[in-house]
Amino acid sequence: MTTGIEAMPKEERLERMRHSASHIMAEAVLSLFPEAKFAIGPPIETGFYYDFDLPRSLTPDDLAVIEERMRQSIAADHPFIREEVSKDEAGRLFADQPYKLELIEDIEGDKVSLYRHGPFTDLCAGPHVERTGQVGAFKLISVAGAYWRGDERNQMLQRIYGALFETQEELDDHLQRMEEAQRRDHRRLGRELDLFSFHEAYGPGLVYWHPKGGRIRTIIEDFWRQEHYQAGYELVYSPHIGKAALWDTSGHLDFYRENMYPPMDVDGQEYFIKPMNCPFHIQIYRSALRSYRDLPMRLAELGTVYRYERSGVLHGLARVRGFTQDDAHIFCRPDQVEEEISRTLEFSLFMLRSFGFSDFQVYIATQPEKAVGSDEQWEQATQALRLAVQRAGLVYEIDEGGGVFYGPKIDIWVKDAVGRPWQLTTIQFDFNMSERFGITYVGEDGREHRPYMVHRALLGSIERFLMVLLEHYGGAFPLWLAPVQAVVIPIADRHVEYAGTVAAELRAEGLRVEVDERGERMQAKIRDAQLQKVPYMLVVGDREQSQDAVAVRCRSGKDLGSLPVFQVIDRLKDEVESRT
Amino acid sequence: MTTGIEAMPKEERLERMRHSASHIMAEAVLSLFPEAKFAIGPPIETGFYYDFDLPRSLTPDDLAVIEERMRQSIAADHPFIREEVSKDEAGRLFADQPYKLELIEDIEGDKVSLYRHGPFTDLCAGPHVERTGQVGAFKLISVAGAYWRGDERNQMLQRIYGALFETQEELDDHLQRMEEAQRRDHRRLGRELDLFSFHEAYGPGLVYWHPKGGRIRTIIEDFWRQEHYQAGYELVYSPHIGKAALWDTSGHLDFYRENMYPPMDVDGQEYFIKPMNCPFHIQIYRSALRSYRDLPMRLAELGTVYRYERSGVLHGLARVRGFTQDDAHIFCRPDQVEEEISRTLEFSLFMLRSFGFSDFQVYIATQPEKAVGSDEQWEQATQALRLAVQRAGLVYEIDEGGGVFYGPKIDIWVKDAVGRPWQLTTIQFDFNMSERFGITYVGEDGREHRPYMVHRALLGSIERFLMVLLEHYGGAFPLWLAPVQAVVIPIADRHVEYAGTVAAELRAEGLRVEVDERGERMQAKIRDAQLQKVPYMLVVGDREQSQDAVAVRCRSGKDLGSLPVFQVIDRLKDEVESRT
Repeated sequence: MTTGIEAMPKEERLERMRHSASHIMAEAVLSLFPEAKFAIGPPIETGFYYDFDLPRSLTPDDLAVIEERMRQSIAADHPFIREEVSKDEAGRLFADQPYKLELIEDIEGDKVSLYRHGPFTDLCAGPHVERTGQVGAFKLISVAGAYWRGDERNQMLQRIYGALFETQEELDDHLQRMEEAQRRDHRRLGRELDLFSFHEAYGPGLVYWHPKGGRIRTIIEDFWRQEHYQAGYELVYSPHIGKAALWDTSGHLDFYRENMYPPMDVDGQEYFIKPMNCPFHIQIYRSALRSYRDLPMRLAELGTVYRYERSGVLHGLARVRGFTQDDAHIFCRPDQVEEEISRTLEFSLFMLRSFGFSDFQVYIATQPEKAVGSDEQWEQATQALRLAVQRAGLVYEIDEGGGVFYGPKIDIWVKDAVGRPWQLTTIQFDFNMSERFGITYVGEDGREHRPYMVHRALLGSIERFLMVLLEHYGGAFPLWLAPVQAVVIPIADRHVEYAGTVAAELRAEGLRVEVDERGERMQAKIRDAQLQKVPYMLVVGDREQSQDAVAVRCRSGKDLGSLPVFQVIDRLKDEVESRT
Repeated sequence: MTTGIEAMPKEERLERMRHSASHIMAEAVLSLFPEAKFAIGPPIETGFYYDFDLPRSLTPDDLAVIEERMRQSIAADHPFIREEVSKDEAGRLFADQPYKLELIEDIEGDKVSLYRHGPFTDLCAGPHVERTGQVGAFKLISVAGAYWRGDERNQMLQRIYGALFETQEELDDHLQRMEEAQRRDHRRLGRELDLFSFHEAYGPGLVYWHPKGGRIRTIIEDFWRQEHYQAGYELVYSPHIGKAALWDTSGHLDFYRENMYPPMDVDGQEYFIKPMNCPFHIQIYRSALRSYRDLPMRLAELGTVYRYERSGVLHGLARVRGFTQDDAHIFCRPDQVEEEISRTLEFSLFMLRSFGFSDFQVYIATQPEKAVGSDEQWEQATQALRLAVQRAGLVYEIDEGGGVFYGPKIDIWVKDAVGRPWQLTTIQFDFNMSERFGITYVGEDGREHRPYMVHRALLGSIERFLMVLLEHYGGAFPLWLAPVQAVVIPIADRHVEYAGTVAAELRAEGLRVEVDERGERMQAKIRDAQLQKVPYMLVVGDREQSQDAVAVRCRSGKDLGSLPVFQVIDRLKDEVESRT
């Protein structure tokens, strides 16, 4: 006797529903393609999939047919029936299903379990819902290629994905979120807005920033540099390569080598391209005798690092092989730790808020079992993190024992416009690197002391940050970040000259303006500007020309009517300055 | 019979004088150290040297003694007498001079020539002046280590350098220039002003920019970016590494490999760290279909490249292994070539003038024998260069056949404050790369055309440019570039608070100000600020405090007296804006 699914925890119930739906889908596919070979069909986070070996590629139309047949099976409300048979018998049952035969071989013991519903029987350990009528609300989503057992040397199968939730409302919510996520997909937006590209043939995971992406990056970096100087940081520049000796002392060759690019042999010496900036900043710290008066010393760099990632895990700007960290290292005395962490945290929140984020999740990770540094250091450092977060009035969670071996840290996640969390800021103590390079300062007592060293990246990396911005804003950047802030659209050829005058006036005020001089109709130009998510469209015709004005249309579709040029300039400049 | 040296061309005469002086120096050294072994002693550009194997290291005092003995030999006015002897006889003569014996062995034929003056005889092919009294004005300069035959596996010898000119006035001029050059040596200034460092153990020729160097670089780069946007460039960012396939197509693996770092083996593929940015910019150009309307396209990048140089030729910031080019590539139509070259040239002059250079030398290098590209392309391109230079009213020289194989170019040299020329800007056509990557644009005729491609770097590289700036200004940067623009110097402890207020007022106006709070005397603080070449010292005491004023002292030593703070702010801001 099975327990009724209504009494189960929701998660377990959902998992059964999804698993059962995958069987129902296999039934439908088999009824359409009797020669289909079927592989595996598990439940997944938001639904289910099943892998098939089919005589032809599936089309979206096929999905509709399969879905329809699934609904018939559901309407029939077949019971799911479990049977146990010997492996031999199972082998006979699935004699023409080679993938199932492979699976049977791998099963330990002598018995295997089957699940049958209506005309369909699958090799399956279960569990399932009681009847096909119980599977909830679902929708088939897509077809993708998938290698049998995930191994690219094997046969490529067709994987059909379905989404499944208990209620239609939950399913609709999910589908809407998916659609929203797709609309915001930074890879798609990156292409459509012509921001960046990858060139696999010349190296996967390496970003080429196009002019418009470069413009956004320049704005971000200018702002970053200016605010860092304002906040008492000093900017440094360090090489991208260093001899093995550097990475040996830093410990990277011991504990980080698998993430590093392989060496270059220069004059019989191994050089590595840098995966981190820290060892270089430490050399700058060490280049002179430091006294307690010189601290805190805050060295910041937009440092481009290269890390090896398997090509399979690369994903747009989210996971790349080369990226620019907005890095800094703070060297300070024990009595400065609290103040420095507080300042860093406040600075991080200021930066993130400047880019439009306001929903933060904060995690403090504490001393793990294996760790370098004294207990006293860990305690002082962790306490500083805790106090800083409290002082900033932030809610936080403690990740007990979750720190890296070299020191405790704060991680800050932001929620984007559609509620997805992204990790951006990290503030980490490092007791390891300071020890390995033996950095010191001369205290007021005339003796040498070890400074605290704090790594921090506020935006994380410029590449990943652009991804988060793109997905947060869906490509509709706020005015101060928009690569093109306004397009002047002449209604007819005779307005082109005036359009140029308007553009020049705005440019003289530091605004980024283009004129759409193409021989297209005004409506087409407006549509194109909107597709490019240009914040303002300034339409000019006879009336505007005669009044030193422009007809202002916002990206949102809102018409502001005809406004004098000087007023538009004021409005745009205010909006840029407010960073909204 | 020899011709009288007065009748000779000056260059030949000088060479003989210098060569003869090296013999006279050897005579003097031998009289001081009878056991000295002597090697070779040629004339060089500004004087002469001789290499010796001596029982002890020479001191500056020794140089004075040697110089004195040389003057005695000169006063004696010994004739130089040439003799020819058999190798055997020479071997006997130089029996206790192992370096000479090695040299004798290497001489072809049976005879060797000797030159004798007074008590000294040297193995020497000449020629020399007639008498020791004719050698002109000289001074011994320094002693340095030098390996016998320049091979580090050989004995290290002591090389004495002398400067020699025809007249005392010319010598004095030269010595003054040398002293000036030493005072302006960017390696020394870089250390003294704490701008940058090298860390040989972690890789020679790799620059670590310290905070103050980083500040100057940031100012240069900010200015550069802003002006490039203003001039119609687009900024892009490209990776530092690329697969062999990229460098293969670009041709770098064929014609530039010896300057490239060795490959990294990633997943069985060779990756190279970039020696140039061009192939990346071409990918960005190629990432979309380009029409004649899209041109000119000007892609600029502060691109950090790495080039292999033998460690022996590395020299401060002048010759490094990694540097950041202020690079750009212009893609344009044939009918735009002239206009683009003119703009580029004007832009270059504007940039160089902004940094304080006003004395330019321009070279146009034309088609060499081996070249790619059609004659028509070469002609049009060279003509464009010529017209642009003429239009800019610049005097230029034609380097006939001196272009690189891929296109003609303009090089611009600037003369620094003490008259030394430095090559900075280069503007080069490239018929090779555009062909190799097959880039095109669709013309008004609807057909594909090959765009012209122009490489250009205006400052050259940021590293080398800092060197030129340092040597040009002797470290005394104009206000807009100075990492610290003013130091506020409180006379006593009770003025520290007011000093802080003054600094804050200046900082709020964007000025870079420090307060010297040390417990030192005012005079010591002024001296230190002057050593750091800080443009303004603002001294504050009771009187200044009571009047909202500061006593202004310039780096030059000039006192401007007591001025209200607001007036100082205006003055400094004006000076920054004018970039003087």
